[in-house]
Formats: sequence, C-alpha cells, structure tokens
Amino acid sequence: MSDSEEKLAPLFTPPYYAVIFASKQTDVAEGYAEVAVRMVELAAQQPGFLGVDSARENIGITVSYWRDIDAIKAWKAQAEHKQAQRKGKLNWYQHFTMRIAKVEREYDFTR
Amino acid sequence: MSDSEEKLAPLFTPPYYAVIFASKQTDVAEGYAEVAVRMVELAAQQPGFLGVDSARENIGITVSYWRDIDAIKAWKAQAEHKQAQRKGKLNWYQHFTMRIAKVEREYDFTR
Repeated sequence: MSDSEEKLAPLFTPPYYAVIFASKQTDVAEGYAEVAVRMVELAAQQPGFLGVDSARENIGITVSYWRDIDAIKAWKAQAEHKQAQRKGKLNWYQHFTMRIAKVEREYDFTR
Repeated sequence: MSDSEEKLAPLFTPPYYAVIFASKQTDVAEGYAEVAVRMVELAAQQPGFLGVDSARENIGITVSYWRDIDAIKAWKAQAEHKQAQRKGKLNWYQHFTMRIAKVEREYDFTR
C-alpha cells in the first residue's frame, strides 16, 4: 500500500472549493471503470481544477478540488460529463451524495 | 458491494462543516484497525458530530461532518483522540492532508 504510486492531492491556498462525492454502486459495473478514468482525465483539463483524491471500498468517495464555484458549475455542465452523469444514474449508482464545501483551513503531515 | 450494510452518511442542513482527511499509510498496520474503529465510535459520541463516510483503497479518505468549527476543535482536543493522533504520526501515516470546509450545498440521488 505505502509503495503505491498514487499520491494525495497537495494542499492549495484557501479559500477554494471541495466537491465531496460519496456513492454506493449497483451490481452493474460494466462500462464504469473506463468512464471513471476518463472523467478524471477530463476534469483535470477543466479551468479551475486543482486536484482530486479518490478511494473505493464498500462505498466510493471522490473529493475534487476547484478554484471557485463557477469552475464547479462549468464542470457539472460539460457535455461529456453530463452524459456520464446520466449513465451513472441509469446504471451504476444505487445511491450517492454530493456536497459542495468551501475549504477554509488545511494541514498536512509528511513523515 | 451493493449489498454491503455500510450506508452513506445522510444529508444534513447547510451550513455545516466537513473534515476531509486523506492519508497514505506506512507498512506498519499493527494496532491501526482497532484504533480506527474506536475513533469512529468516540467521534459519534462528541457534541456536534453529524456523520462520517470512509473508504480505503490505495489511499484512505475519511470525511466527517460536524455542526460547527467549535465541535471540530473540541474533537481535535479530546484526550483519547489526541493519543491516537500521536500514534498515527509515530506509526501509521506516511503522509496525510486534512481540510476543514464549510458545506454550502448538497444533493443526493437514490435509485
């Protein structure tokens, strides 16, 4: 685990925004993994995208970081992303919650 | 996966706060799991605790939800939690980030 290449998103400079997306999937996994990878690639190309942390165990949690609310709105409305959102509701998600939150403080620790 | 009993934290009523904790662990796992479970139990007894979502894959992400900043400060200073924080830095965490963010908007979807 600790030698995985996956890195944490670095700290940025508050204030900025976090989109906290938590999900329970259905039993339908077909097509999900490639769309998930593609959405991270596509988000990273959006103006105002800062970074993302993601993990899936019994539930999935993806936290993406954005410069401001307008950047989040533009990403929500992006055409290919809207198509993925529709597929998610049709096929892949049993339940999800999404929260938009303004980051006020941040800390980190490195051994 | 979808038949797991683990549920997502429900929505609350903004504004409230999220503590977004992302971590990379060391190779030392001894003692971690029981302390992690105990900390969730203990947090749930704190005034102002609303809920928590957690997943661990290559990285761990735990998002806990709190009524206000004072509730987060009190939890940070709680004696048994402070001891766990020390053990985490000594033994279990290679790197972590923690962000305190004010939840402004929220949505959910249920199939």
